[in-house]
Amino acid sequence: MDKAKAYIDEHKERFVGELFELLRIPSVSAQSVHAPDVVRCAELLAGLLVRSGADRAEVMPTEGNPIVYAEKIVDPAAKTVLVYGHYDVMPVDPPDRWETDPFEPVVRDGRIRARGADDDKGQLYMHVKALETMLQTGTLACNVKFMIEGEEEIGSGSIARWCGLHRELLRADIILVSDTSLLSWKVPSITCGLRGLCYVEVEVTGPNRDLHSGLYGGAVANPINVLSGMIASLIDAEGRITIPGFYDGIRELAPQEHREFAAAPFCEAAYCKSLGILETQGEKGYTTLERTGIRPSLDVNGIWGGYTGEGAKTVIPSSAYAKISMRLVPGQDFHKIGELFAAYFRDIAPRSVKVRVKVLHGGAPYVSPTDLPAYRAASAAFEQTFGRKPVPFYSGGSIPVISVFEKELGVKSILMGFGLDEDAIHSPNESYPLANFYRGIETIVRFYANYTAMETA
Amino acid sequence: MDKAKAYIDEHKERFVGELFELLRIPSVSAQSVHAPDVVRCAELLAGLLVRSGADRAEVMPTEGNPIVYAEKIVDPAAKTVLVYGHYDVMPVDPPDRWETDPFEPVVRDGRIRARGADDDKGQLYMHVKALETMLQTGTLACNVKFMIEGEEEIGSGSIARWCGLHRELLRADIILVSDTSLLSWKVPSITCGLRGLCYVEVEVTGPNRDLHSGLYGGAVANPINVLSGMIASLIDAEGRITIPGFYDGIRELAPQEHREFAAAPFCEAAYCKSLGILETQGEKGYTTLERTGIRPSLDVNGIWGGYTGEGAKTVIPSSAYAKISMRLVPGQDFHKIGELFAAYFRDIAPRSVKVRVKVLHGGAPYVSPTDLPAYRAASAAFEQTFGRKPVPFYSGGSIPVISVFEKELGVKSILMGFGLDEDAIHSPNESYPLANFYRGIETIVRFYANYTAMETA
Repeated sequence: MDKAKAYIDEHKERFVGELFELLRIPSVSAQSVHAPDVVRCAELLAGLLVRSGADRAEVMPTEGNPIVYAEKIVDPAAKTVLVYGHYDVMPVDPPDRWETDPFEPVVRDGRIRARGADDDKGQLYMHVKALETMLQTGTLACNVKFMIEGEEEIGSGSIARWCGLHRELLRADIILVSDTSLLSWKVPSITCGLRGLCYVEVEVTGPNRDLHSGLYGGAVANPINVLSGMIASLIDAEGRITIPGFYDGIRELAPQEHREFAAAPFCEAAYCKSLGILETQGEKGYTTLERTGIRPSLDVNGIWGGYTGEGAKTVIPSSAYAKISMRLVPGQDFHKIGELFAAYFRDIAPRSVKVRVKVLHGGAPYVSPTDLPAYRAASAAFEQTFGRKPVPFYSGGSIPVISVFEKELGVKSILMGFGLDEDAIHSPNESYPLANFYRGIETIVRFYANYTAMETA
Repeated sequence: MDKAKAYIDEHKERFVGELFELLRIPSVSAQSVHAPDVVRCAELLAGLLVRSGADRAEVMPTEGNPIVYAEKIVDPAAKTVLVYGHYDVMPVDPPDRWETDPFEPVVRDGRIRARGADDDKGQLYMHVKALETMLQTGTLACNVKFMIEGEEEIGSGSIARWCGLHRELLRADIILVSDTSLLSWKVPSITCGLRGLCYVEVEVTGPNRDLHSGLYGGAVANPINVLSGMIASLIDAEGRITIPGFYDGIRELAPQEHREFAAAPFCEAAYCKSLGILETQGEKGYTTLERTGIRPSLDVNGIWGGYTGEGAKTVIPSSAYAKISMRLVPGQDFHKIGELFAAYFRDIAPRSVKVRVKVLHGGAPYVSPTDLPAYRAASAAFEQTFGRKPVPFYSGGSIPVISVFEKELGVKSILMGFGLDEDAIHSPNESYPLANFYRGIETIVRFYANYTAMETA
């Protein structure tokens, strides 16, 4: 390992420079104006994989954005690790809140600042540089494959079918993913649970045109007021989601599990302080870690309607809109939840409006066992680099593809992410510490060493 | 009158051509980018007034947008009519819903199509052409003054002070205003009641930055969900506004007044059909005409927050916003209502968010007596041109300056508007029928004849 550590140290500035090439491309999958950037980013990534030692790297078409596939086969009889990541990024809205250009990466205060610095370009590139390090130091003892997609931020719509078409190519013993966070730099963690997702867009329409709120106000249902009321009624006073059947199939936590969550390192006061809020809130009877980790939730991600410009306009708009997402937990099926939501939302609409519900995308929740050999290899790697055994963590986020891989490829995933809460992924001023980037590469190299040394795959 | 009618008919195409000059200027007072257009519009209007026969016309500065003052003094001892109107217009949002360029007027299907075609450039210009007609046919027997402001659509913020500074200049016996609508072409009406207005903007802030809705959803208050709930709680199940003290001072309708409202020509089914809605809604115990005419109301005029672009973004935004207006009736003070709203909105906010309330502007309600000589002169003029006695009508709209004039100048106003519901003021595709424009000029000329023939001012 000393050789590997020395290699990383010697080449670390070049590693960051290569990552900057990736970060400069605005591969925003949610905005069609960036479609050419998405393709350009895939092509650059394939090139970087070859430069880093892959035998082959291909930009493979899908029904949506292309997937970058690459591999280094050292011995067909050896174990195979399949690395998953995504090269697409979230939109930058609101752009005026960025302190630096989101697509002109800089290092400031020890952090790489750019959209995608953490999620997921920075994290996926650690795997590319771990491959180079192992090849250049002669320590790679298994096969490595990469599948890096370009639709993770919009629901990974194409990868399931693509996996189904390439089962042989993707044959592997374990999938390795870095797209999650550490509890903190001092408390390393491996993500063992992910929530699922059901994302919908709703439209509430009242009158057939925008109306003058003076002439009609008081007699004609205002779609914004109606939509607000409908949103408000989706969660009750106890923090429970009111959609009939929403909680069906969810296993309640056993007292022992409540105790395990309570034992996880977490400081409510520090959490509130870092967010600038006076208190948390949520479903009655659960703690913050339970509410975000293993209980479902419902959030409005966007709302708009009427006049939102400067000054005042006295209008009753014809329509109002919202984007609403639900995080799901084991026992919930995102297809069924989408149907339940749509039926309920139509049901609670007053007769004075018409309602349209469009399910945009969804994904299944995932739980990873902590007794897998690969989990133990990852756990030992963290302990070696961080000096502390990592905590198994139930994240509230969703990586819907993880359950897709289990279903389509029959392979489990290990979520060894190196992000930090402060990285502000999905927010303005996303960043990723250089220290995490370098230690991530080292931890990944150690994982391979531990994993290939094990008897069982 | 035959001479006047013949003159209008002979010159009607030129009249419309001049109005088009005004309509081509995007004098949108709510958007600072249009500030130069607002001034340009005032200058053009002053020029048109002089061309139409005014002794003098001036663009007079205020603390905000200028006011166009003009006069034709025929005899200092004669009666004086003061015409009020506004040359500013509403924004055109959403611009993609316009079938023709909002600032390139055209006549199609007998209607002038442009922003401001009715509200209020089209209606105010009838008064300018009525002046020309009376001068050219030698029938003007009283003094005429004009005060045309440029801030009506943003709350008439400067005119009160300006009126106070120019009381002598503005001395008049009656104020004449065309900025309202007829019940229909077949049912002429004179507006006797206007609602007041209190317009606020609210901001609800939760976490100090946008958050990933997966990682935080379920534990951190989402400002959009919170704002939706707060908006929903402003109106109860009976359609009553829940702000404590909101209804204080409002006189309840007497049974006789309910009967008068019920007797007004109005068809609920036709009203719903024209709006494309299945039913009206509102405060329990009141009819549609009462709800919009003499009862207060509360509407959200705009709402925004989070991700509103294409596709999906899983964000809990730091803040959410809404523009909310309340229509007020006699007995309500808009300053006090603004304070009550702000206090209540802060009061109902959960501890998990911070709330900011900004009162943008307001105006007092107004009621005009139907036994004024000028009302009788107007009523007779409508009867002469429309063949039917006009109905006294209580409009739900607000022209806050009307009560300002009464307070600052001690002069009552007669609201003889010629708009139609179909004119879509404040909406995309605003229009104004040529027939209303021409008949409006004739009715105004007849008003002067009737009014100057009366013994009492």
